[in-house]
Amino acid sequence: MFRYKIIKKSKASKARIGIFTTPHGVIETPAFIPVGTVGAVKTMQPDELEENGAQIILGNTYHLHLRPGEKLIKKAGGLHKFIKWDGPILTDSGGYQVFSLSQGDERGENDCFKKACSTFRQAKISERGVTFFSHLDGSKHFIGPKESIKIQEDLGADIIMAFDDCTPSGVSKEAARKSMQRSHRWLKGCVKAKKRKDQALFPICQGSIFKDLRGESAKEISSYDLPGFAIGGVSVGESKEKIYQVADWCTDILPEDKPRYLMGIGYPEDIIEVIKRGVDMFDCVLPTRLARHGVVWIGSQSNHGYVSLDLRKSKSRGDLKPLDPSCDCYTCKTGFSRSYLKHLVSEREPLGIHLLTIHNLRFVFNLIENIKDLIRRGKI
Amino acid sequence: MFRYKIIKKSKASKARIGIFTTPHGVIETPAFIPVGTVGAVKTMQPDELEENGAQIILGNTYHLHLRPGEKLIKKAGGLHKFIKWDGPILTDSGGYQVFSLSQGDERGENDCFKKACSTFRQAKISERGVTFFSHLDGSKHFIGPKESIKIQEDLGADIIMAFDDCTPSGVSKEAARKSMQRSHRWLKGCVKAKKRKDQALFPICQGSIFKDLRGESAKEISSYDLPGFAIGGVSVGESKEKIYQVADWCTDILPEDKPRYLMGIGYPEDIIEVIKRGVDMFDCVLPTRLARHGVVWIGSQSNHGYVSLDLRKSKSRGDLKPLDPSCDCYTCKTGFSRSYLKHLVSEREPLGIHLLTIHNLRFVFNLIENIKDLIRRGKI
Repeated sequence: MFRYKIIKKSKASKARIGIFTTPHGVIETPAFIPVGTVGAVKTMQPDELEENGAQIILGNTYHLHLRPGEKLIKKAGGLHKFIKWDGPILTDSGGYQVFSLSQGDERGENDCFKKACSTFRQAKISERGVTFFSHLDGSKHFIGPKESIKIQEDLGADIIMAFDDCTPSGVSKEAARKSMQRSHRWLKGCVKAKKRKDQALFPICQGSIFKDLRGESAKEISSYDLPGFAIGGVSVGESKEKIYQVADWCTDILPEDKPRYLMGIGYPEDIIEVIKRGVDMFDCVLPTRLARHGVVWIGSQSNHGYVSLDLRKSKSRGDLKPLDPSCDCYTCKTGFSRSYLKHLVSEREPLGIHLLTIHNLRFVFNLIENIKDLIRRGKI
Repeated sequence: MFRYKIIKKSKASKARIGIFTTPHGVIETPAFIPVGTVGAVKTMQPDELEENGAQIILGNTYHLHLRPGEKLIKKAGGLHKFIKWDGPILTDSGGYQVFSLSQGDERGENDCFKKACSTFRQAKISERGVTFFSHLDGSKHFIGPKESIKIQEDLGADIIMAFDDCTPSGVSKEAARKSMQRSHRWLKGCVKAKKRKDQALFPICQGSIFKDLRGESAKEISSYDLPGFAIGGVSVGESKEKIYQVADWCTDILPEDKPRYLMGIGYPEDIIEVIKRGVDMFDCVLPTRLARHGVVWIGSQSNHGYVSLDLRKSKSRGDLKPLDPSCDCYTCKTGFSRSYLKHLVSEREPLGIHLLTIHNLRFVFNLIENIKDLIRRGKI
C-alpha cells in the first residue's frame, strides 16, 4: 500500500529525490505540504492547489474534531470526499494544538484559536493524554493516543501522525527526556490502537536539542516497521542552526529507505537547508499566513535569493510593477501590479489574500523544483 | 464608438435582446452588472468573472476616488489595466454614496462604509454638489457634476454615469420634483464637463414614484443624444410593485433604440419583471453580498422558481447533497456538499465566500440566459 523509492541521491549532500506511493497517489519528494487547518488551505480551491504544484495537503485533527467533527466527515466518505481533494492527505495528531492550549501558546493557522488560548481554562496533561477546552465554546474534551488514532481513522487521511508529547523549547535535558519517553509510550499506544491498513502511521522523533536524546528517540521509533518517520519539536522556537543540527542528527539514524518528515518548516532558506540534510517532507502555515497578512516572497529562484515584500507598507502604493516577473503563478502571469495588490490588502478584499496565497505557495513549489533540479545535477 | 443593435424583440412583452458595442467589447443585453466596489468583484478573479458569464462590471467612483485615488489608477493606464479586466466597465457617479453619507444611510458593498455613515460628520448638499467626509478617515471632500465626470474620466470606464440627486424613498411630490430638477441641472453640467469621446455618458431618470415626474424626467434626459439611459431612485426602498411600475413608465418614453439601465436591481424575481418591461441592464451587490453572509440562491432556472438557502443555519450541517444539482458553476460541478460549504461559512474561511459568490453570480447569469431563450421563443 505504501512504498518509498529513492530515484536520485545527491553526491554533495544527504539530499535525495524519491517517490512515495499512497492510496491517493504518489508524492514526489522533497515535498512541501500546505496546511489546510479546517479542511481548506486558506482561500485555495482544490484545482488551484493542484495546478500550483501541491501534491499533498495537511488537515488539523484538533480543529476538524471540534468542527465539523470526524463523525460527519466519515459519513461524507472521509476528508478527501468532504473537501474534494483527491490527492494524498496527512493529518496531524491534534497533540500540537492541545499542548498549545496547556501553555497559552499561539499556534495554528486559526486566529480564533490564538485568541482562545488565553481565554479558556488551560489543558491538563496526564499519562493517558490531554484534557482540554475547545477554543470555540470552552467545552471539555480528551485526546490521548487511542483517541487521536480513532479520530484520524475516521478522517481517513493517507498519512496519520502518532500522538506525541511535543517538547517545548528551552526545557532542561531531564524534562526533555521525560517528555520524549512519554512520546515513546504513546507511540506504542498509537500502534496498538491503529486498525485501518490503508493509512500510514508516522511516528515522531523528539528529544529537544540534545544529541543523545535525539539519537535515542530516532533509534526507538526506527524499531517500528512503519512507512515513514517524522521529526518533531524543532519549529517550536529553536534557532535555525539548532533546527538544521537536529535534522542532521535524526536523518543519520532514521531508516534511509523511508521518507523523513520534518514538521513545521516553511521559510525558503530552511527548506533548502533541511533538504540538504536528508529531509523529504515538510509542512508550514507560513506561505498562507504571510499572504493573509499581505506579505509575499519574491526574487530569484535560481540562486535561492529572495526578499519578503510587505504590501501593508506604503512604499508599494504607487508601485506599478508586477509582483514577481520571475514567477509563473496566476497572480504574476496576469500581471496584477504591486499597487493593485496593496490596494486589495488595504481594503481587506478577500481576492487580495487569495492572489497572494497563490503566489506564496507557487513560490515554495517552484523553489523545490529548482532544488530538485540541483539534486539531479549533483549541485546540492 | 457606441452602438446598440436590437436583435430580437419579444412579441409578448417589452423585453428585447440587443448588442451594445463599447470600446472594450460588446455586451449582449439583457445584462447583469456585478458590482466591484473597490476595484474587485468580491473574491472573484477576472478570469472567473468571464468564465461565469460576466460581460461588464461596475466600479464605485466614491470608493475608488478615496482609495487608491483616480490619479493612481490613471497612471496605471486606467481602471481596466489596474484591475486586469479587459471587458467593459461602468462607473457610477459617486452620488449614491455621498448622498448616503448625508442621510446616515447604510448603502454600498463596503462594511466599513456602512459603519462610517453614522460615525463621521454628515454630508452637505448645495446647488454645486456635495461636501462629504471620507468613511476611511473623516477627511473632507467635494463632488459635483464636474468633479464626478473628471474622476470618471480618469478612471476610464466605458460607461460613466451622470452625477444626480438620488431622490430618497417616501418624499413628497414637491421634494421629488425639486430633486429631479436639480438632477436635470446637474446633467447639463456633466454633459458640459465631459471631454473624453471614448466613454458613454448615461443620464439618469429621477422623479420618485410619481408618473408625471418620471415622464417629465424621461423626456428631459431623452432630449440629449446619448448612447444609453438610466433609471435611478427605485432601489432605494420602494416596493417591488412600484419598481416595476416606474420601470414601465420610463421605458415607455426613453428612446427605444438605446439601452436602458435600471440601477440597483438584483433579486431574481425583479430581474425577470424589469426585463419584461424593457430594461436591458441592471446592477446589484446582492449576489456577492448574500454570498458573503452565507446565503445562496438555488432552484430550477426553467420555471424561475428558486429558494434562498441560508448556510449559517444549522439545518445544512449534515446535508451532504451538492449545493444545486441544476447549476453548472465550479462550486456545484465540483460537488462540494452543503455541509462542507456550511462548515467553511462557520469557520469564516474565505474559500467559502468565494465558492458561494461564484455560485450566486452564475445563478444570475444562467437565469438571464434562460430569459433570453424565452424572449427568442416569444414566450415572455
